[in-house]
Amino acid sequence: MTRQELVDLIRRKKSYLCVGLDTDPEKIPHWIREDFEDPVFEFNRRIIDATIDKVAAYKPNMAFYESQGSKGWKSLEKTMDYLNSHTQGPVFTIADAKRGDIGNSASYYAKAFFENMQFDSVTVNPYMGHDALKPFLSVPGKWAVVLALTSNPGAKDFQLWQPQLPMILEKLGIKTEQWKRFYELIVEQCLQWGTPENMMFVVGATRPEMLQSVRESAPNHFFLVPGVGTQGGSLQEVSRQAMNSDCGLLINVSRNIIFASKGRDFDQRAREVAIEYQQEMEVLLKEKNLI
Amino acid sequence: MTRQELVDLIRRKKSYLCVGLDTDPEKIPHWIREDFEDPVFEFNRRIIDATIDKVAAYKPNMAFYESQGSKGWKSLEKTMDYLNSHTQGPVFTIADAKRGDIGNSASYYAKAFFENMQFDSVTVNPYMGHDALKPFLSVPGKWAVVLALTSNPGAKDFQLWQPQLPMILEKLGIKTEQWKRFYELIVEQCLQWGTPENMMFVVGATRPEMLQSVRESAPNHFFLVPGVGTQGGSLQEVSRQAMNSDCGLLINVSRNIIFASKGRDFDQRAREVAIEYQQEMEVLLKEKNLI
Repeated sequence: MTRQELVDLIRRKKSYLCVGLDTDPEKIPHWIREDFEDPVFEFNRRIIDATIDKVAAYKPNMAFYESQGSKGWKSLEKTMDYLNSHTQGPVFTIADAKRGDIGNSASYYAKAFFENMQFDSVTVNPYMGHDALKPFLSVPGKWAVVLALTSNPGAKDFQLWQPQLPMILEKLGIKTEQWKRFYELIVEQCLQWGTPENMMFVVGATRPEMLQSVRESAPNHFFLVPGVGTQGGSLQEVSRQAMNSDCGLLINVSRNIIFASKGRDFDQRAREVAIEYQQEMEVLLKEKNLI
Repeated sequence: MTRQELVDLIRRKKSYLCVGLDTDPEKIPHWIREDFEDPVFEFNRRIIDATIDKVAAYKPNMAFYESQGSKGWKSLEKTMDYLNSHTQGPVFTIADAKRGDIGNSASYYAKAFFENMQFDSVTVNPYMGHDALKPFLSVPGKWAVVLALTSNPGAKDFQLWQPQLPMILEKLGIKTEQWKRFYELIVEQCLQWGTPENMMFVVGATRPEMLQSVRESAPNHFFLVPGVGTQGGSLQEVSRQAMNSDCGLLINVSRNIIFASKGRDFDQRAREVAIEYQQEMEVLLKEKNLI
């Protein structure tokens, strides 16, 4: 999906909501587990049918599918076939795989997600450098979603790392503004490799002031924002700080939507929660004159 | 597999060779592709049978299996079943998956590799911090193999990054030794989280002086070393600089062994190349009085 198509989709649906298909087999309602041969696919199918008119994107998280081995991959392939041929599509799709490997291996990962399963995008880990990203930036209409600043506690360990100035400098009164945090270096460097047409950044909602600083560095790129909902980030705060003139945001919500209920009505409850987010987004899009 | 069992295995086999099962379906001899229903598994089976008495470890690279979708995962599961029940086993196994995700997702990846497929270890990407590594460090006898300094060109982009001192400091004659490169920070921090019993580091052979510096920081940890062979690293140089009193090295060779020949004799050629490496390793182990 091209950038323009994504922007049009967001405007048409009045939504920049991404539903995370973190389909933990142990959290699927027990009756689905008992009644269906492929409960993961059946669960996803019902969530998709109940929410697709209210969301811009779906993001299956590979960890949950891989934990079921080849059977899990089959459920994922079926989910992608279902999404890609849905009568209420198209919808943007993100393989939350966080892959990152040397060039040759990375090109096989790109094949797995872009060609075989027809995902629009893949989350990628930048630690191994440019050759790890390149294969995800080389296919028109496909996207690399680069981990910049994630929403987990461990983000502080390396992403937020910043050189400490020697004491002597403080005594000499030398200012420290020039010392960037590591995620800022990542963003700055990645901006040399990708464009707003083929690269997005993952920027967590849990540190809003930093979200704003990434927006300053990358005014035109889309951000995939986790951390709203369970992790405590605020949809309004994130949107007001980082929405750009093409929206430029996909806000991910996973468990709060897909596991909103464990009952027979789980898909309808998922729909209700998705609508709550979508309605809030509609107001925010209007505030920015985007719709 | 515990550290002691791994060390015993290396001494018994007089080998610290790891064979990378980078089974690119397009590079498998055509007659295997034509004659067998699961050519990837058939190829792996023959490579394993031809080399297992000469190697300490096998490392399937997930990218090649995932590129075949659920079918590829099935080939991988069969390969692991075969390895784990081999009469000439046990042998150390590494899932070269380079995974890294927030705690809950990471624990599902750990389940996929440690529980379902009974891998001894998984390569993990440290960028997301401690919660991304923890699930891989919590199972006795299982290992996290942390990417420190990889052997690809892109390693220079972030791993080798180092703060640049302001010009004024040079003028003041302030020394720069205290400014570590990013991969050194990663190693230093990870040493706080894991032990030589549950953590290894990936350190490429292509920058031998840096390999030595990681050995100084982590004297007792095992290193998984890619980059010998096709990428130009030297087995002798690596071994002399980084072998410790328990060997502490697993040297990976992939294509040079598994694709040594495209003919009917591919497995025998693979064996011959593996024996060349093993014999060189035997000399180096003797030099260190390890056997």
